[in-house]
Amino acid sequence: MTAGELLAADSAVVAVLGAGSWGTTFAKVLADAATATGVQRAIRMWGRRSEVVSQINSEHRNEQYLKEVALPESITASTDVSKVLDGAGIVILAVPAQSLRLQLREWKPYVAPGAVVVSLMKGLELGTDSRMSQVISEELDIPHERVAVISGPNLAMEIARQEPTASVVACSDEPTAAAIAHCCTAPYFRPYTSNDVIGVEIGGIVKNVIALAVGICEGKEMGDNTKASVITRGLAETTRLALALGGEAHTMAGLAGLGDLVATCSSPLSRNHTAGRLLGQGLTLEQVAERMTQTAEGIKSGYAVYELAGKLGVEMPITAAVVAVLEGKLSVDQLGPTLLARSLKSEGDY
Amino acid sequence: MTAGELLAADSAVVAVLGAGSWGTTFAKVLADAATATGVQRAIRMWGRRSEVVSQINSEHRNEQYLKEVALPESITASTDVSKVLDGAGIVILAVPAQSLRLQLREWKPYVAPGAVVVSLMKGLELGTDSRMSQVISEELDIPHERVAVISGPNLAMEIARQEPTASVVACSDEPTAAAIAHCCTAPYFRPYTSNDVIGVEIGGIVKNVIALAVGICEGKEMGDNTKASVITRGLAETTRLALALGGEAHTMAGLAGLGDLVATCSSPLSRNHTAGRLLGQGLTLEQVAERMTQTAEGIKSGYAVYELAGKLGVEMPITAAVVAVLEGKLSVDQLGPTLLARSLKSEGDY
Repeated sequence: MTAGELLAADSAVVAVLGAGSWGTTFAKVLADAATATGVQRAIRMWGRRSEVVSQINSEHRNEQYLKEVALPESITASTDVSKVLDGAGIVILAVPAQSLRLQLREWKPYVAPGAVVVSLMKGLELGTDSRMSQVISEELDIPHERVAVISGPNLAMEIARQEPTASVVACSDEPTAAAIAHCCTAPYFRPYTSNDVIGVEIGGIVKNVIALAVGICEGKEMGDNTKASVITRGLAETTRLALALGGEAHTMAGLAGLGDLVATCSSPLSRNHTAGRLLGQGLTLEQVAERMTQTAEGIKSGYAVYELAGKLGVEMPITAAVVAVLEGKLSVDQLGPTLLARSLKSEGDY
Repeated sequence: MTAGELLAADSAVVAVLGAGSWGTTFAKVLADAATATGVQRAIRMWGRRSEVVSQINSEHRNEQYLKEVALPESITASTDVSKVLDGAGIVILAVPAQSLRLQLREWKPYVAPGAVVVSLMKGLELGTDSRMSQVISEELDIPHERVAVISGPNLAMEIARQEPTASVVACSDEPTAAAIAHCCTAPYFRPYTSNDVIGVEIGGIVKNVIALAVGICEGKEMGDNTKASVITRGLAETTRLALALGGEAHTMAGLAGLGDLVATCSSPLSRNHTAGRLLGQGLTLEQVAERMTQTAEGIKSGYAVYELAGKLGVEMPITAAVVAVLEGKLSVDQLGPTLLARSLKSEGDY
């Protein structure tokens, strides 16, 4: 199916694999988008746990992740991935980044030929330093033109509450990006398109690491001047990494770079920001993990980002400092001064 | 005096004209910087009101603007500008933007020949659409090489409390920027240098207008996704204006662009952010003015920015919407939807 056919067919069936907060919220966006444009569309979710799946089917809620939010009735769920993927022209992936590769090996036989696969995930694979779109292409053996990513200032709970939100759909093939954007344009969700998959993914990955740094500063009760400086210098190092990989500077200045970083670093809803704050308050990594029900992806991706930057010779001082804190080599008391204690110099280019 | 001589002399006398929160805080930075480097430096402040001036001299405090903060004893104050300016090699200006021109006409005879003049002000002059550095050059009849500006994520009260802060000193002459940066490097205040005066000034001016928009969204209880999008699109339109005037994109991605914008839009200490929030909660412009003791510069500069953008043919939809709200042509209820209701398209270049 070409992107044109995809748009024409208006993708009667969309599969959403992963029933966490973002996967479930995005299923709602797809359903509301179809309703708003008068299109018939079946949204089928796959979830690992039968209790979550049956609550979606019977009560149209996902209480664990989205509390009291009512889900549209056009969303159904199953624990059987073969049923969910059957005939789906668009496959949305929203599973933990570090387990994606193994999941895809299991799912590959059921993915419809010609399907477009969309990543909602924000992580870098430990060991391979691969972006999620690369893992998808490799494991499903499909060309880049059929892999898209969606990222932006998209705190899931706010979208589930239908607060106005903008986002970016990126695909190397622009008509495919436009087709996906068309499918997920709801009254409260406005996607822009981009062909810079690398930039959009790197923005979403590194912001979790920077959010840990900002959270630590907050936990140490540092002020908004310091936090704004860490965000600014954090976006600069994110941009350096994106450029080294072939991404574009203007993507980093946009919704999937700056926008996502600011939303994550402002919100008490962000897991990475919260994890950083707890570290800043003096909790150990183990104590932070115990306190949180969902993964703070930045803790895992931080190491991979640091490794990738090292291979490419990209200077990422904030990421390096966060990794040093996570490894117990730098105390949270030293982090703030480390970030600001640089010799006087001209504010660098990227 | 050349920049080199300035640095060699280590500017035994610095005048700070304006005894509001930023002027007073910056005087403290200069005094602490001298102490930290073992330099003798007299910091002389000019203030309009004798009660403020005598409190600085006798109690080493400026209670109205900086509450309980203790000021170094090397700071003296006077209401007599001729005494303050006598022999000062560096003149720091921190008065309300809209009254600068008339003040300078009065002060011109007392400014020492060869002095470097530094603007801490963030505003665009109504009527002429001039930046503060332009007003300084014009009225004091001094070349651009001797006019510098300082801007960044610099909430005055946080700096007065000695929280770690970074900033940018910009001058078309880099050695002058470096000399000024040297004079104001305190243990808690780290200035970087830049030669992009236009970019640094435009960042500081437009962020007040964007902060009004973000404040209005907050007053309407919109979420962090929306606020992050307004900040992102706001920086994009600021960058478009800066580029049209000859500024540089990477300045806007730095501390004086992104950094200042994020600090202002995050902080409850920002007057513009607060004014926006009150407007968003339904107060009229008159009621907002009554509630606030200090000027929200964005309310005045907003019109000038809008006018300048119009002359240059630069699209600034957020500024236009804020001005429409201020003029009573758009309700605060319409602002949010207006900002996000755009047709689907690729995320634009600048």
